[in-house]
Amino acid sequence: MIGRLNHVAIAVGDLEKACKLYRETMGAKVSEPLPQPAHGVTVVFIELPNTKVELLHPLGENSPIAKFLEKSPDGGIHHICYEVDDILAARDRLKAGGARVLGDGNPKIGAHGKPVLFLHPKDFNGTLVELEQA
Amino acid sequence: MIGRLNHVAIAVGDLEKACKLYRETMGAKVSEPLPQPAHGVTVVFIELPNTKVELLHPLGENSPIAKFLEKSPDGGIHHICYEVDDILAARDRLKAGGARVLGDGNPKIGAHGKPVLFLHPKDFNGTLVELEQA
Repeated sequence: MIGRLNHVAIAVGDLEKACKLYRETMGAKVSEPLPQPAHGVTVVFIELPNTKVELLHPLGENSPIAKFLEKSPDGGIHHICYEVDDILAARDRLKAGGARVLGDGNPKIGAHGKPVLFLHPKDFNGTLVELEQA
Repeated sequence: MIGRLNHVAIAVGDLEKACKLYRETMGAKVSEPLPQPAHGVTVVFIELPNTKVELLHPLGENSPIAKFLEKSPDGGIHHICYEVDDILAARDRLKAGGARVLGDGNPKIGAHGKPVLFLHPKDFNGTLVELEQA
């Protein structure tokens, strides 16, 4: 069912410093910051040959990563995202297996303009998992 | 400098349950558990089309992930691993950029039989980063 690892998302407290680290010290291809007010984050894409790392920084009030950074001011891995072909079929299979879908259980349009769902970390080894319809 | 994302490592408290979740509910290709006494872990590989997820479970005394699971019994993402072509050149570049290498600073042979280094999470946005010479 799950396909490619679409991205690893890392919450960062100092976006400029994190970009510099990945661009200059790590020698990676790092995008310009992309504000996404609808999602409460500014995103920077780090393009690796096989997948992406996404740096997330809070934007505006009620950012979904504000609480995470309060607990971990240095930042940390926030979630991983797996691609699926059919997000409703994936959701139904996961729910049948006992996994909890966050929110109202219906896919939302995510940061890449595609339907996404988030799954409860308690059901996935303490890992927040995003599913994105590829 | 950094190349492919080699793997995302997830520490798990209940390996059998985690394997079942990824194999049956997530429909992924999941290996048999591979004990690695020299590294103090049992590893399970989840093969995705573009990269791997590695489930880590403590093995023996002084497992390097025992403390992590004490703090987070559900488990959680333990580290991410980037490939590099030349691990010594990568290390020297990172050190010149102010990043701290864990241990004595010399590469060790990692779980895949290749030279690896771990970098200090404080210097990488709260993320433990492994470098592996590809």
